[in-house]
Amino acid sequence: MLHLKASSSPKWLLRVKDHLDELLVDHAHCEKKAAGTAMNLLFAYVDQVPVVRQLADIVREELEHFEQVLDLLQQRGIPFRRLKPTSYARRLHEQIRKLEPQRAVDRLLVAGLIEARSCERFDLLRHGIEDAELARFYDSLFESEARHHTTYVQLATHFAPEQEVYRRLDELAQAEADILQQVEPWVRMHS
Amino acid sequence: MLHLKASSSPKWLLRVKDHLDELLVDHAHCEKKAAGTAMNLLFAYVDQVPVVRQLADIVREELEHFEQVLDLLQQRGIPFRRLKPTSYARRLHEQIRKLEPQRAVDRLLVAGLIEARSCERFDLLRHGIEDAELARFYDSLFESEARHHTTYVQLATHFAPEQEVYRRLDELAQAEADILQQVEPWVRMHS
Repeated sequence: MLHLKASSSPKWLLRVKDHLDELLVDHAHCEKKAAGTAMNLLFAYVDQVPVVRQLADIVREELEHFEQVLDLLQQRGIPFRRLKPTSYARRLHEQIRKLEPQRAVDRLLVAGLIEARSCERFDLLRHGIEDAELARFYDSLFESEARHHTTYVQLATHFAPEQEVYRRLDELAQAEADILQQVEPWVRMHS
Repeated sequence: MLHLKASSSPKWLLRVKDHLDELLVDHAHCEKKAAGTAMNLLFAYVDQVPVVRQLADIVREELEHFEQVLDLLQQRGIPFRRLKPTSYARRLHEQIRKLEPQRAVDRLLVAGLIEARSCERFDLLRHGIEDAELARFYDSLFESEARHHTTYVQLATHFAPEQEVYRRLDELAQAEADILQQVEPWVRMHS
């Protein structure tokens, strides 16, 4: 359902589970960036009204999640701060073709793959961490990230035939799996 | 309350009242741009959590308004399309100082002045047009635009003392009034 080509290494959970404070700060940035990505897509394809409406919903939902993470940080006394991102998103964005409408397809599919990977990571966290409040929180976000993945793939079909979209999704999902193998081993949602 | 230095010319309402379809398309773009501006500010000042929370609320509200305008366009069978903007926003943005924290103050105040002008225009529309549904719609938006104006001015005080913020608001409001005198006489919310 998530179209990912590789599961996360078990090492990821081992690496992050003793640094959930830092992971939570990174998670806040992820939700902010997800909102920003949907907003950028809304501006780029504003004349496609059905696309725009779904992107506006995603922006609103991601901002709500962002504020939920900020609430958790505040309750736990964890200062929100800037964090150096891994090269994951940048390298995925390098896969995006330059010319429209292929560019639209790729931007939407890359956004969808990032949602899929977040979703897979939330699944590992909800089952694999001892902090019950955080486990419940990741459980509560799991479903919406999966839904956003599906929405992005479906939105791509506004710009290319379904068969072409799924062929390209297959390629980009392979690129995503390869990039994840090489990404910096830091405490990040996408490391 | 809105800190504007000049009221709109009566010519503006005369110019737009027979072209409410085109004005409504422009209005949709204004709400979209207002959401985008708040999102850009959120990204720029993300380490100021109280600022960020209020900006996130503004993004969500502006996107709701954007979708409400899209609904009206759809109900009325008016195609949503790209429109050439007047030079109003570009010229206002040219007033923004380059160095922080003055830049933050100016970006927030410029955003606040655009909200104030929209608010003043909605007031003219709610009292001056015969289309009862649209008059009610502009009436329903009036209060939130006024509130956004106040929020932006208050947010600027996170970056400079209140006295300095109000001194700069006075200067920028004068620039806004001057720019409005010179802007292209098209059918736009800010013409």
